[in-house]
Amino acid sequence: MPSPDEPRLALDPIDAARENWARHGWSSAVDGMGAVTSIMRVQQIVLSEVERVLKPFGLTFARYEVLMLLHFTRTGALPVGKVGERLQVHPASVTNAVSRLEEDGLVERSPNPADGRSVMATITDEGRRRAVAATDQLNELVFAAWPLDHDDSADLYAHLKQVRRAFRDFA
Amino acid sequence: MPSPDEPRLALDPIDAARENWARHGWSSAVDGMGAVTSIMRVQQIVLSEVERVLKPFGLTFARYEVLMLLHFTRTGALPVGKVGERLQVHPASVTNAVSRLEEDGLVERSPNPADGRSVMATITDEGRRRAVAATDQLNELVFAAWPLDHDDSADLYAHLKQVRRAFRDFA
Repeated sequence: MPSPDEPRLALDPIDAARENWARHGWSSAVDGMGAVTSIMRVQQIVLSEVERVLKPFGLTFARYEVLMLLHFTRTGALPVGKVGERLQVHPASVTNAVSRLEEDGLVERSPNPADGRSVMATITDEGRRRAVAATDQLNELVFAAWPLDHDDSADLYAHLKQVRRAFRDFA
Repeated sequence: MPSPDEPRLALDPIDAARENWARHGWSSAVDGMGAVTSIMRVQQIVLSEVERVLKPFGLTFARYEVLMLLHFTRTGALPVGKVGERLQVHPASVTNAVSRLEEDGLVERSPNPADGRSVMATITDEGRRRAVAATDQLNELVFAAWPLDHDDSADLYAHLKQVRRAFRDFA
């Protein structure tokens, strides 16, 4: 095993971490550590790729997700709290995303007629145009260019779903 | 397909997004979108699990990774710039992590004798104790409790590695 002191840029740092784990007698944790570290690293790579594509549209991934959720909703409107539930993000993050989208004219906020304590977010026409234009680019540059073929993608999706299910991500 | 207006907490929101994508004629992007969204979501779940375990040790995942890298290094020391390269994180993030670790007495900074412009980070004895104690807990509560068996973990690892390779994460 190469010493971590030597510059070995050719070496996969996660393979190196797996070797270190095994060498320290933590063999039963090697698979989990390797999976967790890979997920962290791939998320970082993919998020930066997605945000690079979204930047010209004035969107982050968080704001893009809010916009698409509203776009897909029959009426184009949802209570802000519901947006957080559906996207499984913290209420403060949703409030922040919706505020930024409103400043940019992509979403409007109004009192919820069905519940005076809650606020509705409604996508604007410009919001819909922006959502579709951003999706066209994301589809072309990231999603349809995804480096795994259909079968490998399906396997990856199934394994990640198993992890999500184990952590009670959905019923 | 259920309308997104109806409360269907039992429905996997990523399956719902895949259905929406297909229904809008974006079929060639369904696999990539599903994979990317799953990765984002699993990272969020796993990071929060890992940070919950690390919190009693006064560590975040970013600081834990720095500490373990130094712990695994033959001399317990690396130039701060090298730490960033190995962990593939932004120089500002490493500087911030190393500063916090130094405040907590887990790392010491000193001028690099081999290069006056660079700074060495050295793990302290307390840093080593903290790194090992945190790893014992992470191994037990997260890594060894990982919900996929060895073969599924190996598949997941291989597919994520294929993604990392495609994005030129390592040579």
